[in-house]
Amino acid sequence: MPRSPDELRALVEEHLDALRLWPELHGQAESVRYSLTVGGKRVRPVLCLAVAEAAGCEPEEALSAAAALELVHTFSLVHDDLPPLDDDEERRGRPSTWKQYGEAVGILAGDALLAEAFRLATAYETPHVARELANATLGMIGGQYLDVTGTAPDEATLHRLKTGRLFAAAVGLALWVADVPEPEQHAWRAFGEELGLLFQIVDDILDGDGYVVTHGPDGARRLADEAAERARARLGEVDADTSVLRDIVDGLAVRTA
Amino acid sequence: MPRSPDELRALVEEHLDALRLWPELHGQAESVRYSLTVGGKRVRPVLCLAVAEAAGCEPEEALSAAAALELVHTFSLVHDDLPPLDDDEERRGRPSTWKQYGEAVGILAGDALLAEAFRLATAYETPHVARELANATLGMIGGQYLDVTGTAPDEATLHRLKTGRLFAAAVGLALWVADVPEPEQHAWRAFGEELGLLFQIVDDILDGDGYVVTHGPDGARRLADEAAERARARLGEVDADTSVLRDIVDGLAVRTA
Repeated sequence: MPRSPDELRALVEEHLDALRLWPELHGQAESVRYSLTVGGKRVRPVLCLAVAEAAGCEPEEALSAAAALELVHTFSLVHDDLPPLDDDEERRGRPSTWKQYGEAVGILAGDALLAEAFRLATAYETPHVARELANATLGMIGGQYLDVTGTAPDEATLHRLKTGRLFAAAVGLALWVADVPEPEQHAWRAFGEELGLLFQIVDDILDGDGYVVTHGPDGARRLADEAAERARARLGEVDADTSVLRDIVDGLAVRTA
Repeated sequence: MPRSPDELRALVEEHLDALRLWPELHGQAESVRYSLTVGGKRVRPVLCLAVAEAAGCEPEEALSAAAALELVHTFSLVHDDLPPLDDDEERRGRPSTWKQYGEAVGILAGDALLAEAFRLATAYETPHVARELANATLGMIGGQYLDVTGTAPDEATLHRLKTGRLFAAAVGLALWVADVPEPEQHAWRAFGEELGLLFQIVDDILDGDGYVVTHGPDGARRLADEAAERARARLGEVDADTSVLRDIVDGLAVRTA
Protein backbone atom coordinates (compact mmCIF):
# COMPACT_ATOMS: atom_id res chain seq x y z
CA MET A 1 0.00 0.00 0.00
CA PRO A 2 1.47 3.36 -0.99
CA ARG A 3 1.41 5.90 1.80
CA SER A 4 -1.31 8.54 1.93
CA PRO A 5 -0.53 12.27 1.56
CA ASP A 6 -1.08 12.67 5.33
CA GLU A 7 1.38 9.91 6.11
CA LEU A 8 3.92 11.45 3.75
CA ARG A 9 3.38 14.86 5.35
CA ALA A 10 4.11 13.37 8.78
CA LEU A 11 7.32 11.91 7.33
CA VAL A 12 8.33 15.33 6.01
CA GLU A 13 7.59 17.11 9.29
CA GLU A 14 9.54 14.53 11.26
CA HIS A 15 12.49 14.81 8.90
CA LEU A 16 12.51 18.61 9.01
CA ASP A 17 12.24 18.60 12.80
CA ALA A 18 15.22 16.28 13.10
CA LEU A 19 17.28 18.03 10.41
CA ARG A 20 20.82 18.60 11.62
CA LEU A 21 21.83 21.99 10.34
CA TRP A 22 25.47 22.52 9.41
CA PRO A 23 27.32 23.18 12.72
CA GLU A 24 29.34 26.09 11.33
CA LEU A 25 26.14 28.12 11.04
CA HIS A 26 26.54 28.81 14.77
CA GLY A 27 23.77 31.14 16.05
CA GLN A 28 22.43 31.63 12.53
CA ALA A 29 20.83 28.20 12.85
CA GLU A 30 18.12 29.57 15.16
CA SER A 31 16.52 31.83 12.54
CA VAL A 32 16.82 29.08 9.93
CA ARG A 33 14.92 26.70 12.18
CA TYR A 34 12.36 29.41 13.03
CA SER A 35 11.72 29.94 9.32
CA LEU A 36 11.32 26.22 8.73
CA THR A 37 8.88 25.56 11.55
CA VAL A 38 6.46 28.26 10.51
CA GLY A 39 4.05 25.51 9.51
CA GLY A 40 2.75 25.33 5.98
CA LYS A 41 1.22 22.48 4.08
CA ARG A 42 4.50 21.01 2.81
CA VAL A 43 2.81 20.51 -0.57
CA ARG A 44 6.06 20.33 -2.57
CA PRO A 45 7.95 17.80 -0.43
CA VAL A 46 4.84 15.62 -0.08
CA LEU A 47 4.46 15.66 -3.85
CA CYS A 48 8.14 14.75 -4.19
CA LEU A 49 7.79 11.74 -1.88
CA ALA A 50 4.57 10.60 -3.54
CA VAL A 51 6.15 10.71 -7.01
CA ALA A 52 9.20 8.85 -5.71
CA GLU A 53 7.01 6.10 -4.27
CA ALA A 54 4.85 5.89 -7.40
CA ALA A 55 8.02 5.69 -9.51
CA GLY A 56 9.22 2.73 -7.53
CA CYS A 57 11.43 3.75 -4.63
CA GLU A 58 10.95 4.10 -0.90
CA PRO A 59 9.78 7.62 0.01
CA GLU A 60 12.53 7.66 2.67
CA GLU A 61 15.15 7.68 -0.09
CA ALA A 62 13.68 10.92 -1.41
CA LEU A 63 13.59 12.70 1.96
CA SER A 64 16.80 14.68 1.42
CA ALA A 65 15.59 15.88 -1.98
CA ALA A 66 12.14 16.70 -0.58
CA ALA A 67 13.64 18.61 2.34
CA ALA A 68 16.01 20.47 0.01
CA LEU A 69 13.01 21.57 -2.04
CA GLU A 70 11.12 22.77 1.05
CA LEU A 71 14.23 24.73 2.11
CA VAL A 72 14.40 26.46 -1.27
CA HIS A 73 10.69 27.29 -0.97
CA THR A 74 11.27 28.62 2.57
CA PHE A 75 14.29 30.63 1.40
CA SER A 76 12.08 32.31 -1.19
CA LEU A 77 9.45 33.21 1.42
CA VAL A 78 12.04 34.58 3.86
CA HIS A 79 13.56 36.88 1.24
CA ASP A 80 10.16 37.81 -0.26
CA ASP A 81 9.02 39.01 3.17
CA LEU A 82 11.94 41.48 3.48
CA PRO A 83 11.06 45.21 3.52
CA PRO A 84 12.58 46.00 0.10
CA LEU A 85 10.45 43.22 -1.45
CA ASP A 86 6.97 42.49 -0.06
CA ASP A 87 7.59 44.08 3.37
CA ASP A 88 5.53 41.47 5.21
CA GLU A 89 5.78 41.59 8.98
CA GLU A 90 3.77 38.43 9.45
CA ARG A 91 3.68 34.96 8.00
CA ARG A 92 0.99 32.53 9.08
CA GLY A 93 0.17 34.55 12.17
CA ARG A 94 3.75 34.80 13.45
CA PRO A 95 6.37 37.51 12.93
CA SER A 96 8.19 36.92 9.64
CA THR A 97 11.84 35.96 9.99
CA TRP A 98 13.25 39.46 9.45
CA LYS A 99 10.65 40.93 11.85
CA GLN A 100 11.69 38.42 14.49
CA TYR A 101 15.48 38.62 14.04
CA GLY A 102 16.14 41.88 12.22
CA GLU A 103 16.78 42.48 8.54
CA ALA A 104 20.47 41.50 8.51
CA VAL A 105 19.85 38.10 10.09
CA GLY A 106 16.73 37.73 7.93
CA ILE A 107 18.81 38.10 4.77
CA LEU A 108 21.40 35.64 6.10
CA ALA A 109 18.63 33.20 7.10
CA GLY A 110 17.46 33.03 3.49
CA ASP A 111 21.05 32.60 2.31
CA ALA A 112 21.62 29.79 4.81
CA LEU A 113 18.39 28.03 3.79
CA LEU A 114 19.50 28.07 0.16
CA ALA A 115 22.99 26.76 0.97
CA GLU A 116 21.55 24.07 3.28
CA ALA A 117 19.19 23.06 0.49
CA PHE A 118 22.16 22.41 -1.78
CA ARG A 119 24.00 20.57 0.96
CA LEU A 120 20.98 18.23 1.24
CA ALA A 121 20.62 17.94 -2.53
CA THR A 122 24.24 16.79 -2.88
CA ALA A 123 23.67 13.85 -0.53
CA TYR A 124 22.99 11.62 -3.55
CA GLU A 125 25.55 9.69 -5.57
CA THR A 126 24.94 11.63 -8.77
CA PRO A 127 24.62 15.42 -9.14
CA HIS A 128 21.23 15.17 -10.95
CA VAL A 129 19.14 16.16 -7.93
CA ALA A 130 21.31 19.17 -7.07
CA ARG A 131 21.54 20.24 -10.71
CA GLU A 132 17.79 20.16 -11.22
CA LEU A 133 17.27 22.03 -7.95
CA ALA A 134 19.72 24.76 -9.04
CA ASN A 135 17.96 25.20 -12.37
CA ALA A 136 14.53 25.38 -10.72
CA THR A 137 15.79 27.89 -8.15
CA LEU A 138 17.20 30.11 -10.89
CA GLY A 139 13.86 29.98 -12.71
CA MET A 140 12.02 30.90 -9.53
CA ILE A 141 14.37 33.83 -8.87
CA GLY A 142 13.87 35.00 -12.47
CA GLY A 143 10.12 34.92 -11.84
CA GLN A 144 10.55 36.87 -8.65
CA TYR A 145 12.50 39.50 -10.61
CA LEU A 146 9.74 39.78 -13.22
CA ASP A 147 7.20 40.19 -10.42
CA VAL A 148 9.17 42.77 -8.40
CA THR A 149 9.98 44.89 -11.45
CA GLY A 150 6.61 44.44 -13.16
CA THR A 151 8.32 43.26 -16.34
CA ALA A 152 6.66 39.86 -16.87
CA PRO A 153 5.69 39.38 -20.53
CA ASP A 154 2.46 37.64 -19.41
CA GLU A 155 0.73 36.01 -16.45
CA ALA A 156 1.50 32.45 -17.59
CA THR A 157 5.25 33.08 -17.78
CA LEU A 158 5.27 34.67 -14.35
CA HIS A 159 3.45 31.78 -12.68
CA ARG A 160 5.35 29.09 -14.56
CA LEU A 161 8.52 30.56 -13.05
CA LYS A 162 7.44 31.74 -9.60
CA THR A 163 5.30 28.74 -8.67
CA GLY A 164 5.63 26.21 -11.45
CA ARG A 165 9.39 25.71 -11.31
CA LEU A 166 9.39 24.29 -7.77
CA PHE A 167 6.35 22.09 -8.47
CA ALA A 168 8.04 20.74 -11.57
CA ALA A 169 11.18 20.21 -9.51
CA ALA A 170 9.21 18.25 -6.90
CA VAL A 171 8.47 15.77 -9.67
CA GLY A 172 11.89 16.00 -11.35
CA LEU A 173 13.87 15.46 -8.15
CA ALA A 174 11.82 12.39 -7.32
CA LEU A 175 12.41 10.95 -10.81
CA TRP A 176 16.18 11.21 -10.35
CA VAL A 177 16.02 9.65 -6.88
CA ALA A 178 13.89 6.80 -8.28
CA ASP A 179 16.28 6.39 -11.23
CA VAL A 180 13.60 6.90 -13.88
CA PRO A 181 15.43 7.05 -17.23
CA GLU A 182 15.24 10.42 -18.95
CA PRO A 183 13.20 9.22 -21.96
CA GLU A 184 10.46 8.02 -19.57
CA GLN A 185 10.29 11.28 -17.62
CA HIS A 186 8.16 13.31 -20.04
CA ALA A 187 4.61 12.50 -18.84
CA TRP A 188 5.68 12.75 -15.19
CA ARG A 189 7.15 16.18 -15.80
CA ALA A 190 4.12 17.39 -17.73
CA PHE A 191 2.03 16.27 -14.73
CA GLY A 192 4.22 18.46 -12.47
CA GLU A 193 3.69 21.49 -14.71
CA GLU A 194 -0.10 21.08 -14.62
CA LEU A 195 -0.08 20.64 -10.87
CA GLY A 196 1.90 23.87 -10.41
CA LEU A 197 -0.63 25.72 -12.54
CA LEU A 198 -3.54 24.16 -10.61
CA PHE A 199 -1.94 25.19 -7.30
CA GLN A 200 -1.45 28.78 -8.49
CA ILE A 201 -4.98 29.22 -9.84
CA VAL A 202 -6.56 27.83 -6.66
CA ASP A 203 -4.28 30.12 -4.65
CA ASP A 204 -5.61 33.07 -6.60
CA ILE A 205 -9.21 31.87 -6.11
CA LEU A 206 -8.64 31.69 -2.34
CA ASP A 207 -6.96 35.13 -2.28
CA GLY A 208 -9.29 36.75 -4.84
CA ASP A 209 -6.42 38.00 -6.98
CA GLY A 210 -4.36 36.99 -10.05
CA TYR A 211 -6.43 34.66 -12.22
CA VAL A 212 -9.66 35.83 -10.49
CA VAL A 213 -8.91 39.39 -11.56
CA THR A 214 -8.02 38.46 -15.13
CA HIS A 215 -10.62 35.70 -15.70
CA GLY A 216 -13.37 36.32 -13.12
CA PRO A 217 -14.30 33.79 -10.39
CA ASP A 218 -16.04 31.37 -12.76
CA GLY A 219 -13.32 31.63 -15.37
CA ALA A 220 -10.63 30.95 -12.79
CA ARG A 221 -12.57 27.96 -11.43
CA ARG A 222 -12.90 26.57 -14.96
CA LEU A 223 -9.16 27.01 -15.60
CA ALA A 224 -8.40 25.21 -12.33
CA ASP A 225 -10.69 22.30 -13.23
CA GLU A 226 -9.10 22.04 -16.67
CA ALA A 227 -5.58 22.00 -15.18
CA ALA A 228 -6.67 19.28 -12.73
CA GLU A 229 -8.15 17.28 -15.60
CA ARG A 230 -4.96 17.57 -17.66
CA ALA A 231 -2.89 16.57 -14.60
CA ARG A 232 -5.04 13.41 -14.22
CA ALA A 233 -4.69 12.68 -17.92
CA ARG A 234 -0.90 12.88 -17.64
CA LEU A 235 -0.98 10.42 -14.76
CA GLY A 236 -2.95 8.09 -17.01
CA GLU A 237 0.02 8.02 -19.40
CA VAL A 238 2.33 6.73 -16.68
CA ASP A 239 2.80 3.01 -16.11
CA ALA A 240 2.58 3.09 -12.30
CA ASP A 241 0.17 3.11 -9.36
CA THR A 242 -0.62 6.82 -9.28
CA SER A 243 -3.58 6.61 -6.87
CA VAL A 244 -1.90 8.78 -4.23
CA LEU A 245 -0.97 11.37 -6.85
CA ARG A 246 -4.61 11.45 -7.95
CA ASP A 247 -5.55 12.11 -4.32
CA ILE A 248 -3.08 15.00 -4.32
CA VAL A 249 -4.63 16.46 -7.50
CA ASP A 250 -8.12 16.15 -6.01
CA GLY A 251 -6.96 17.71 -2.74
CA LEU A 252 -5.30 20.67 -4.45
CA ALA A 253 -8.35 21.26 -6.65
CA VAL A 254 -10.79 21.59 -3.73
CA ARG A 255 -8.51 22.97 -1.03
CA THR A 256 -9.87 25.87 1.01
CA ALA A 257 -6.63 27.02 2.66
CA MET B 1 55.29 24.27 -18.02
CA PRO B 2 52.52 25.02 -15.51
CA ARG B 3 50.72 28.26 -16.17
CA SER B 4 51.59 31.38 -14.19
CA PRO B 5 49.09 33.07 -11.85
CA ASP B 6 48.63 35.82 -14.45
CA GLU B 7 47.86 33.30 -17.18
CA LEU B 8 45.39 31.56 -14.90
CA ARG B 9 43.77 34.88 -14.03
CA ALA B 10 43.28 35.61 -17.72
CA LEU B 11 41.64 32.20 -18.09
CA VAL B 12 39.26 33.00 -15.21
CA GLU B 13 38.33 36.42 -16.60
CA GLU B 14 37.69 34.99 -20.03
CA HIS B 15 35.51 32.23 -18.58
CA LEU B 16 33.50 34.63 -16.40
CA ASP B 17 33.02 37.02 -19.33
CA ALA B 18 31.69 34.22 -21.51
CA LEU B 19 29.56 32.64 -18.76
CA ARG B 20 26.09 31.88 -20.04
CA LEU B 21 23.72 32.69 -17.21
CA TRP B 22 20.60 30.58 -16.87
CA PRO B 23 18.09 31.99 -19.41
CA GLU B 24 15.15 31.92 -16.99
CA LEU B 25 16.81 34.66 -14.95
CA HIS B 26 15.42 37.08 -17.53
CA GLY B 27 16.28 40.72 -16.64
CA GLN B 28 17.81 39.62 -13.33
CA ALA B 29 20.87 38.52 -15.31
CA GLU B 30 21.98 42.14 -15.79
CA SER B 31 22.64 42.82 -12.10
CA VAL B 32 24.30 39.40 -11.75
CA ARG B 33 26.70 40.26 -14.54
CA TYR B 34 27.28 43.75 -13.14
CA SER B 35 28.24 42.22 -9.78
CA LEU B 36 30.59 39.77 -11.45
CA THR B 37 32.45 42.30 -13.58
CA VAL B 38 33.27 44.59 -10.69
CA GLY B 39 36.89 43.52 -11.11
CA GLY B 40 38.76 42.06 -8.20
CA LYS B 41 41.86 39.96 -8.11
CA ARG B 42 40.13 36.59 -8.61
CA VAL B 43 42.44 35.16 -5.95
CA ARG B 44 40.20 32.19 -5.09
CA PRO B 45 39.52 30.91 -8.63
CA VAL B 46 43.18 31.39 -9.61
CA LEU B 47 44.18 29.36 -6.55
CA CYS B 48 41.66 26.70 -7.54
CA LEU B 49 43.06 26.40 -11.05
CA ALA B 50 46.66 26.38 -9.82
CA VAL B 51 45.96 23.57 -7.34
CA ALA B 52 44.12 21.61 -10.04
CA GLU B 53 47.11 21.90 -12.38
CA ALA B 54 49.61 21.04 -9.64
CA ALA B 55 47.46 18.03 -8.70
CA GLY B 56 47.62 16.77 -12.25
CA CYS B 57 44.69 17.95 -14.33
CA GLU B 58 44.22 20.62 -16.95
CA PRO B 59 43.19 23.94 -15.36
CA GLU B 60 40.38 24.10 -17.93
CA GLU B 61 38.70 21.14 -16.26
CA ALA B 62 38.48 23.12 -13.02
CA LEU B 63 37.01 26.25 -14.61
CA SER B 64 33.41 25.49 -13.62
CA ALA B 65 34.43 24.85 -10.02
CA ALA B 66 36.62 27.98 -9.97
CA ALA B 67 33.83 30.10 -11.41
CA ALA B 68 31.33 28.65 -8.93
CA LEU B 69 33.64 29.67 -6.11
CA GLU B 70 34.00 33.21 -7.45
CA LEU B 71 30.21 33.44 -7.72
CA VAL B 72 29.81 32.41 -4.07
CA HIS B 73 32.40 35.02 -3.11
CA THR B 74 30.58 37.64 -5.19
CA PHE B 75 27.23 36.63 -3.68
CA SER B 76 28.69 37.28 -0.23
CA LEU B 77 29.93 40.74 -1.24
CA VAL B 78 26.60 41.69 -2.84
CA HIS B 79 24.64 40.76 0.30
CA ASP B 80 27.27 42.22 2.67
CA ASP B 81 26.96 45.57 0.93
CA LEU B 82 23.18 45.78 1.58
CA PRO B 83 21.99 48.55 3.93
CA PRO B 84 20.95 46.23 6.80
CA LEU B 85 24.45 44.70 6.74
CA ASP B 86 27.47 46.88 5.91
CA ASP B 87 25.50 49.57 4.05
CA ASP B 88 28.22 50.10 1.45
CA GLU B 89 27.23 52.29 -1.49
CA GLU B 90 30.46 51.64 -3.35
CA ARG B 91 32.60 48.67 -4.24
CA ARG B 92 35.90 49.20 -6.02
CA GLY B 93 34.96 52.71 -7.09
CA ARG B 94 31.60 51.78 -8.61
CA PRO B 95 28.11 51.79 -7.11
CA SER B 96 27.51 48.54 -5.22
CA THR B 97 24.89 46.27 -6.76
CA TRP B 98 21.99 47.39 -4.55
CA LYS B 99 22.95 51.05 -5.05
CA GLN B 100 22.90 50.53 -8.81
CA TYR B 101 19.72 48.42 -9.05
CA GLY B 102 17.84 49.04 -5.80
CA GLU B 103 17.67 46.89 -2.71
CA ALA B 104 15.10 44.37 -3.97
CA VAL B 105 17.07 43.51 -7.09
CA GLY B 106 20.28 43.62 -5.02
CA ILE B 107 18.95 40.90 -2.73
CA LEU B 108 17.81 38.83 -5.72
CA ALA B 109 21.19 39.34 -7.43
CA GLY B 110 22.95 37.70 -4.48
CA ASP B 111 20.40 34.88 -4.49
CA ALA B 112 20.90 34.33 -8.22
CA LEU B 113 24.70 34.32 -7.86
CA LEU B 114 24.44 31.61 -5.21
CA ALA B 115 22.06 29.49 -7.27
CA GLU B 116 24.23 29.94 -10.40
CA ALA B 117 27.24 28.88 -8.38
CA PHE B 118 25.52 25.60 -7.54
CA ARG B 119 24.44 25.13 -11.13
CA LEU B 120 28.10 25.41 -12.17
CA ALA B 121 29.28 23.20 -9.32
CA THR B 122 26.91 20.41 -10.41
CA ALA B 123 28.47 20.27 -13.88
CA TYR B 124 30.78 17.45 -12.72
CA GLU B 125 30.02 13.76 -12.75
CA THR B 126 30.14 13.37 -8.98
CA PRO B 127 28.52 15.64 -6.40
CA HIS B 128 31.80 16.19 -4.47
CA VAL B 129 32.46 19.67 -5.85
CA ALA B 130 28.93 20.91 -5.16
CA ARG B 131 28.87 19.29 -1.72
CA GLU B 132 32.14 20.89 -0.65
CA LEU B 133 30.97 24.24 -2.01
CA ALA B 134 27.73 24.00 -0.01
CA ASN B 135 29.60 23.23 3.20
CA ALA B 136 32.05 26.09 2.67
CA THR B 137 29.21 28.50 1.90
CA LEU B 138 27.42 27.51 5.09
CA GLY B 139 30.60 28.10 7.09
CA MET B 140 31.07 31.49 5.49
CA ILE B 141 27.46 32.48 6.25
CA GLY B 142 27.97 31.33 9.85
CA GLY B 143 31.01 33.60 10.04
CA GLN B 144 29.03 36.46 8.60
CA TYR B 145 26.41 35.92 11.32
CA LEU B 146 29.07 35.97 14.07
CA ASP B 147 30.44 39.19 12.60
CA VAL B 148 27.09 40.96 12.17
CA THR B 149 25.89 40.04 15.66
CA GLY B 150 29.27 40.49 17.37
CA THR B 151 29.05 37.00 18.85
CA ALA B 152 32.29 35.44 17.56
CA PRO B 153 34.04 33.48 20.32
CA ASP B 154 37.42 34.74 19.04
CA GLU B 155 39.15 36.38 16.08
CA ALA B 156 40.59 33.13 14.72
CA THR B 157 37.16 31.44 14.52
CA LEU B 158 35.66 34.45 12.78
CA HIS B 159 38.36 34.60 10.11
CA ARG B 160 38.53 30.85 9.64
CA LEU B 161 34.84 31.01 8.70
CA LYS B 162 34.48 34.35 6.91
CA THR B 163 37.64 34.16 4.82
CA GLY B 164 39.20 30.77 5.43
CA ARG B 165 36.30 28.60 4.30
CA LEU B 166 36.35 29.82 0.69
CA PHE B 167 40.15 29.63 0.50
CA ALA B 168 40.03 26.08 1.82
CA ALA B 169 37.29 25.34 -0.71
CA ALA B 170 39.46 26.70 -3.54
CA VAL B 171 41.89 23.92 -2.70
CA GLY B 172 39.26 21.28 -1.89
CA LEU B 173 37.26 21.83 -5.09
CA ALA B 174 40.42 21.49 -7.18
CA LEU B 175 41.33 18.22 -5.42
CA TRP B 176 37.96 16.70 -6.34
CA VAL B 177 38.23 17.88 -9.94
CA ALA B 178 41.76 16.39 -10.13
CA ASP B 179 40.54 13.15 -8.52
CA VAL B 180 43.02 13.30 -5.65
CA PRO B 181 42.07 10.45 -3.28
CA GLU B 182 40.81 11.60 0.12
CA PRO B 183 43.72 10.13 2.14
CA GLU B 184 46.15 12.25 0.08
CA GLN B 185 44.23 15.49 0.52
CA HIS B 186 45.42 16.41 4.01
CA ALA B 187 48.58 18.46 3.26
CA TRP B 188 46.86 20.21 0.36
CA ARG B 189 43.96 21.22 2.59
CA ALA B 190 46.25 22.38 5.40
CA PHE B 191 47.98 24.55 2.78
CA GLY B 192 44.61 26.10 1.90
CA GLU B 193 43.89 26.93 5.55
CA GLU B 194 47.25 28.70 5.97
CA LEU B 195 46.74 30.63 2.76
CA GLY B 196 43.34 31.87 3.94
CA LEU B 197 44.90 33.06 7.18
CA LEU B 198 47.75 34.76 5.30
CA PHE B 199 45.27 36.52 3.02
CA GLN B 200 43.24 37.78 5.99
CA ILE B 201 46.22 39.08 7.98
CA VAL B 202 47.65 40.93 4.96
CA ASP B 203 44.18 42.34 4.31
CA ASP B 204 44.14 43.71 7.85
CA ILE B 205 47.67 45.11 7.43
CA LEU B 206 46.57 46.96 4.28
CA ASP B 207 43.38 48.23 5.96
CA GLY B 208 44.98 48.93 9.35
CA ASP B 209 42.32 46.95 11.23
CA GLY B 210 41.72 43.45 12.64
CA TYR B 211 45.08 41.79 13.35
CA VAL B 212 46.84 45.19 13.30
CA VAL B 213 44.57 46.37 16.13
CA THR B 214 44.97 43.20 18.19
CA HIS B 215 48.67 42.51 17.48
CA GLY B 216 50.19 45.82 16.37
CA PRO B 217 51.74 46.38 12.89
CA ASP B 218 54.91 44.40 13.65
CA GLY B 219 52.99 41.60 15.35
CA ALA B 220 50.60 41.32 12.39
CA ARG B 221 53.50 41.26 9.92
CA ARG B 222 55.17 38.49 11.93
CA LEU B 223 51.94 36.44 11.98
CA ALA B 224 51.63 36.88 8.20
CA ASP B 225 55.21 35.74 7.62
CA GLU B 226 54.66 32.71 9.85
CA ALA B 227 51.48 31.76 8.00
CA ALA B 228 53.33 32.09 4.66
CA GLU B 229 56.13 29.92 6.01
CA ARG B 230 53.71 27.23 7.18
CA ALA B 231 51.93 27.36 3.80
CA ARG B 232 55.28 26.75 2.03
CA ALA B 233 56.06 23.91 4.43
CA ARG B 234 52.75 22.25 3.61
CA LEU B 235 53.54 22.47 -0.09
CA GLY B 236 56.82 20.74 0.67
CA GLU B 237 54.83 17.73 1.92
CA VAL B 238 53.05 17.36 -1.42
CA ASP B 239 54.48 15.16 -4.15
CA ALA B 240 53.89 17.56 -7.05
CA ASP B 241 55.33 20.57 -8.87
CA THR B 242 54.05 23.32 -6.59
CA SER B 243 56.17 26.16 -8.03
CA VAL B 244 53.13 28.20 -9.14
CA LEU B 245 51.51 27.76 -5.74
CA ARG B 246 54.73 29.03 -4.12
CA ASP B 247 54.48 32.08 -6.38
CA ILE B 248 50.93 32.58 -5.14
CA VAL B 249 52.06 32.39 -1.51
CA ASP B 250 54.85 34.90 -2.19
CA GLY B 251 52.49 37.20 -4.05
CA LEU B 252 49.88 37.16 -1.26
CA ALA B 253 52.55 37.80 1.39
CA VAL B 254 53.85 40.98 -0.23
CA ARG B 255 50.73 42.28 -1.97
CA THR B 256 49.98 45.96 -1.56
CA ALA B 257 46.38 45.98 -2.82
